[in-house]
Amino acid sequence: MVDLHDRKPPHQVVIVGGGFGGLYAAKALAKANVNVTLIDKRNFHLFQPLLYQVATGALSPADISSPLRSVLSKSKNTTVLLGEVNDIDTTEQKVMVGGETVPYDTLIVATGAKHSYFGKDNWEEFAPGLKTVEDAIEMRRRIFMAFEAAEKESDPAKRRALLTFVIVGGGPTGVELAGAIAELATQTLKEDFRNIDTSETKVLLLEGLDRVLPPFAPELSQEAQASLEALGVDVQTKTLVTNIENDIVTIKQGDEVKTIASKTVLWAAGVKASAMGKVLMDKTGAECDRAGRVIVEPDLSIKGHSNIFVVGDLANFAHQNGKPLPGVAPVAMQEGEYVAKLVQKRIKGETLPQFNYVDRGSLAMIGQHAAVVDLGFIKLKGFLAWFFWLFIHIYFLIEFDNKLVVMIQWVWNYFTRNRGARLITGKEMVKPVPVESNGHYQPVNTRQPLNV
Amino acid sequence: MVDLHDRKPPHQVVIVGGGFGGLYAAKALAKANVNVTLIDKRNFHLFQPLLYQVATGALSPADISSPLRSVLSKSKNTTVLLGEVNDIDTTEQKVMVGGETVPYDTLIVATGAKHSYFGKDNWEEFAPGLKTVEDAIEMRRRIFMAFEAAEKESDPAKRRALLTFVIVGGGPTGVELAGAIAELATQTLKEDFRNIDTSETKVLLLEGLDRVLPPFAPELSQEAQASLEALGVDVQTKTLVTNIENDIVTIKQGDEVKTIASKTVLWAAGVKASAMGKVLMDKTGAECDRAGRVIVEPDLSIKGHSNIFVVGDLANFAHQNGKPLPGVAPVAMQEGEYVAKLVQKRIKGETLPQFNYVDRGSLAMIGQHAAVVDLGFIKLKGFLAWFFWLFIHIYFLIEFDNKLVVMIQWVWNYFTRNRGARLITGKEMVKPVPVESNGHYQPVNTRQPLNV
Repeated sequence: MVDLHDRKPPHQVVIVGGGFGGLYAAKALAKANVNVTLIDKRNFHLFQPLLYQVATGALSPADISSPLRSVLSKSKNTTVLLGEVNDIDTTEQKVMVGGETVPYDTLIVATGAKHSYFGKDNWEEFAPGLKTVEDAIEMRRRIFMAFEAAEKESDPAKRRALLTFVIVGGGPTGVELAGAIAELATQTLKEDFRNIDTSETKVLLLEGLDRVLPPFAPELSQEAQASLEALGVDVQTKTLVTNIENDIVTIKQGDEVKTIASKTVLWAAGVKASAMGKVLMDKTGAECDRAGRVIVEPDLSIKGHSNIFVVGDLANFAHQNGKPLPGVAPVAMQEGEYVAKLVQKRIKGETLPQFNYVDRGSLAMIGQHAAVVDLGFIKLKGFLAWFFWLFIHIYFLIEFDNKLVVMIQWVWNYFTRNRGARLITGKEMVKPVPVESNGHYQPVNTRQPLNV
Repeated sequence: MVDLHDRKPPHQVVIVGGGFGGLYAAKALAKANVNVTLIDKRNFHLFQPLLYQVATGALSPADISSPLRSVLSKSKNTTVLLGEVNDIDTTEQKVMVGGETVPYDTLIVATGAKHSYFGKDNWEEFAPGLKTVEDAIEMRRRIFMAFEAAEKESDPAKRRALLTFVIVGGGPTGVELAGAIAELATQTLKEDFRNIDTSETKVLLLEGLDRVLPPFAPELSQEAQASLEALGVDVQTKTLVTNIENDIVTIKQGDEVKTIASKTVLWAAGVKASAMGKVLMDKTGAECDRAGRVIVEPDLSIKGHSNIFVVGDLANFAHQNGKPLPGVAPVAMQEGEYVAKLVQKRIKGETLPQFNYVDRGSLAMIGQHAAVVDLGFIKLKGFLAWFFWLFIHIYFLIEFDNKLVVMIQWVWNYFTRNRGARLITGKEMVKPVPVESNGHYQPVNTRQPLNV
C-alpha cells in the first residue's frame, strides 16, 4: 500500500469524470488539505435522471445541466480541466489528457457508462439511446418529427407506423419515456394537428422479463404497468427484441415471432462501461466484468493499486450481498463521498471501514399524478409517489438556479399540460437554402451541425 | 385587381414564414372567415431579439421559442405545415412545398432575412452570425470554448488572442453581444478559472459609422458607448473590417490599417433578404433592392399581384419617408396585422388606407442597469431604460410559459450574476470512443434488464 501520509502536501487528487460519482467526490474534498483536479470532456454536470424530460420536450438541456466550474468555483483547492483522459501511467502516477499530463497521488475514475446494443451496434441508427444531451435532442427531434410527418402522410399504413412509438426496455428510463410520450400524444399535442388525431398514437413498451421495473417490489411493477396502461401504453413483458431495422421491430414472445411497424424506436435497454474500463484493465491489471465494469476492492480501490479508485457506473462493487450495486445516481454519490473521506483519513494515517451502500429506495415517474416509490420500509404509488418524486428531484438538482427554473417549468406544465421545449433542432433542420441571386445553389450554413 | 369577394368562401390564405410578420398575420386572421395555412421550415417561432442571450449562456433556446402549433392551436381555421417553400405558381395560385402544392387565394410571404458578409462569404467560417438557434449555440460554444482554451494555454500571445473577442457591427445585436460578453468575463466567470484572470478579457466592438446604434438619437449612441466602456468594452467607430482570417481581423481606420489577433470573431454587421426574394422576383417580376428585399406597394402587395403580399424583413416599404422601414420586429408585426385586416376588408368588398408604420421607439440592452430607449417623445438611459427593456421583452414573449420562465431566469441571473445555460454542446463535443478490447463488450444489467 502506498503510504500516503509520507508524501509531501498538498496531496494531488485527480478525478476523471464530473457525473454524480466524480462531482460528489470533488465536493467532499473542497475543504480538505489536498489539491483536486477534476477532468471531464464536457463543461457541465448532467442530471441524467431527468434527461427523458429533455427528450420529450418538457425541459431544456440547460435546466438539468450545471457548469462544473460554477459548481466548484468556491472550492479554491480545485481545478477543473476540460478534456478527455486517454491514458494512465501508474508508475509515474500521471494521467494523459490530450497532449498534457496531470500527476496524481490519488486517482478517482468515475467515467460512467454508455448504452449498449448487446453487440448489435447497427441497431443504434434506428433506435437511439439516452445518455447525453445530444442523445436527448436527437430523441426529441425524432418524436416530434414523427407527428409532423404523420400530419402530412395520406397513406394509412405509413401514418400508423409514424404514430407508433416503440420503447425497448422496461426499466425506469423506459417507463418514464413511455409515460411521457403517451401524455404528449393524448394531452399536450391533442389540439395541435388538423389531419391526425394524436390520441390514436400507439406507445409500446417492450420488456424481456415478466414485469416492468424489475428492481422494484412486484406490487409496484404491477402498479406501474396499470398506470401505464391507463395512459394508453401497450406494455409487453416477456418480449425479446430480435431485430431492429428501418421501420420494423421484430420481437419474440415465447415461440411466437411478430413484427411491429414503427418509425420511432427508442432504446432504454442496456448499458456498458465507458472506455476507461479498458484503459484501467490494461494499465493496472484490473479485472472487468462482462459489461466492462471494473471489479473493485471493498474500499473501491483497484486490487494492487490502493491509490486508484473507481466509483459510479464504471465500478462493479459486489461486497455487500454478492450482487454488483446498480448503476444509479445514489450509489455513485455515496461511493464518491466515501473515497473522498478515505483519502483524507489516509493522509492522517488513519483508516476507514469498507464501503457500505445505504439504499434509500428507488423511484420512477409514470405520468401526471402517477409514480412508484419503493423505500423498502414503505411503498408509495399514485399521487403521493408522484409528489415525492418531484420533491426528491428538485432537491437533488445541484444548483439552486436549476431547481427554481425546473420547478416553475413543472408547475406551468402541470396546469397547462403544455411542454414548451419541443423545438426541433439539429443537423437535419439546417437545410441549404435554394438558389442565390447569381443563379447557382449555394449552401448557406456550412458550419458544423449542432445540437442544442 | 383580383376581385376577392367574388370567390367562393372560404378564402384560402397561405402565409410563408412563422416569424413576427407571418405569425402576427395568422393570429389576426384567427377569427376571420378564411382558411389559413402557415408554412415554416421550423416548428417554432423564434423570439430573435433575445437570441444574443442564448449565445451568451443566459437563456435556453426553448425559453425564446414557441411551438407554432401550440401558439395557433386555438385558431381552428389555421393549419400549420412544416416544410420549405421552394417555388410559387402565380397563374394557378399555388405554392410548392417539397413535393406538395398548396393553393392560395391570398399569399403572404414573410420569410425574413439572414446575415450577409457583403460578398465575403469565406468570412462566415471565422465570424459566425446570429439568426437561428443553431447560430446561437455555435456562438455560445465558441465563446465558452475560448475561455476553456485560454485556461490551458501557456503562451501569452495565444492566450491574449483567446481572450480577445471581436464583434463586428455596432447595431443593437452587436451592442448587446459586446455588453453581455464583457459582463460574462468580469462577473459571471470571475471565480471559475484558476490559471487565467477573466477580467483581463478584451472585448472590441467595431462599427463603420461614426457612432454605435446609428438608428438612435446621437445622445443615446453616446450614452451606449459610455456604458459599454464602463463595462470594459473597447468601442471603435469609423472602423472598416477589410479582412477576416483564422485568428486575424484586419481593420481600416481612416488611412491606417491594423490587425487584431482574436480567436473569437462574431458577426453582427449585415443582413440580406432570404431566398424567397429571388423566387418572387422570378415569378412575379417584383423589383428587389440591393439587399434582395422586395419593393412593395403602399398596401404591401407586389406590383401587378394585388393578392401577393410581402411583410417583415423581406419587404422594402419606402412609402412613408422615402427610406425603407428598418428590419425590426415591430415593423413586421404591424405589417402582418395590416395585411390580415386588408384581406378581411377586401372579402367584404371594402378597402383600407395604405400601410402606415407607427414607430413606438427603439431600445437596446447594454448590461446590468444599463440600456438605452428612444421613444421619440422621451429618451431613457441607465436603470430606467434597463427596466423598461426587461418589461417590454417579457410582454412580447408570446406564450405565458416563456414569459414566466424567462422572468424567473432573469431575476435569478440578476441576483447571482450567474448564467446557467453555458453548456457547450454540439457535434465537436461528441467524440468517437476509443477502440474496445475484443471487438465488443458484453452488456450487463446495471440499470436496465438484460434479456430484452
